[in-house]
Amino acid sequence: MARWEPNARERLQQAALDLYGERGFEQTTVAEIAKRAGLTERTFFRYFADKPEVLFSGAGALQEFLVTLVAQAPDSTAPMDAIASALEATAGFFQERREFSAQRQAVIEANADLRERELIKLATLASALADQLRRRGVSDPAASLTADAGIAVFKTAFERWISEPAQQDFAKLIRESLDELRAVTAGK
Amino acid sequence: MARWEPNARERLQQAALDLYGERGFEQTTVAEIAKRAGLTERTFFRYFADKPEVLFSGAGALQEFLVTLVAQAPDSTAPMDAIASALEATAGFFQERREFSAQRQAVIEANADLRERELIKLATLASALADQLRRRGVSDPAASLTADAGIAVFKTAFERWISEPAQQDFAKLIRESLDELRAVTAGK
Repeated sequence: MARWEPNARERLQQAALDLYGERGFEQTTVAEIAKRAGLTERTFFRYFADKPEVLFSGAGALQEFLVTLVAQAPDSTAPMDAIASALEATAGFFQERREFSAQRQAVIEANADLRERELIKLATLASALADQLRRRGVSDPAASLTADAGIAVFKTAFERWISEPAQQDFAKLIRESLDELRAVTAGK
Repeated sequence: MARWEPNARERLQQAALDLYGERGFEQTTVAEIAKRAGLTERTFFRYFADKPEVLFSGAGALQEFLVTLVAQAPDSTAPMDAIASALEATAGFFQERREFSAQRQAVIEANADLRERELIKLATLASALADQLRRRGVSDPAASLTADAGIAVFKTAFERWISEPAQQDFAKLIRESLDELRAVTAGK
């Protein structure tokens, strides 16, 4: 009979990230993750379908959060501003998970398959945001260009936030990255 | 002994694209491609490592072409203009292969694995362009943002060029897409 394990999900995630970082993603088994977390393999599979799922289980929720915020932006809001505001609103989420996010990023950067999966995640997110802009009446190519610009801004802000420990304010980095994108596209 | 076959590469590519379009990528075998082209499987493998390679064999040359042009841009050229000029210079290449490009795009859009490979190709291209900008002295995040903006412009121009038969001028579509990106990032 399954016992209730407090914080099993978080314990498994932390154990997995620690082991991926120590031994490499490929070299870590589910059995080892479960053991490190003081849980069973069966419990692992109650929360995650496989090893990569530990790293990507939040993608759906992030996408839903962003799409919902874009949907709720006032009609008068320009598409780029609707996307930028939604991205700024993720600051609370990420700032609570800074160490987790940094560990996750290092694991992904070290593995080609995970880098590909991360690319697909971001492309799927761009596509969902472009669809939501179309539902707001934004035509193409503006819808897809705005969504792609948003993802470029997000990636840039995220990389700075991870690599510059002095940068704590994720929302500020989103605004600065958008300003930088405006400057570079203007040909400066 | 291998016979010399005139235009073997082009004949194999055309046969493969026709069959991928008619039957689907998954359902087509190398034996069928070779037969349609009037050649042998052995000849196919002299030109292509596998079935997807027929669709992606040009990626390396495109990347090298773009990176070389960015490297050769005058020092005074703004990074975004260096990227945009390089992209405009691909017009001749694509315009000679319009039918091929349209067929290729349709095959890729119909298959999830090929869409992923196309994403990876474009991300690799963005990364190579960002590296070349860094060699020109462009710092981050400007280098990666400019390269990402360039790829967004390229994708947009390419989709319009494929889907709007009246749009023949690829270089003009690159310029229009960059103008559109400027407009959307400015919040219009």
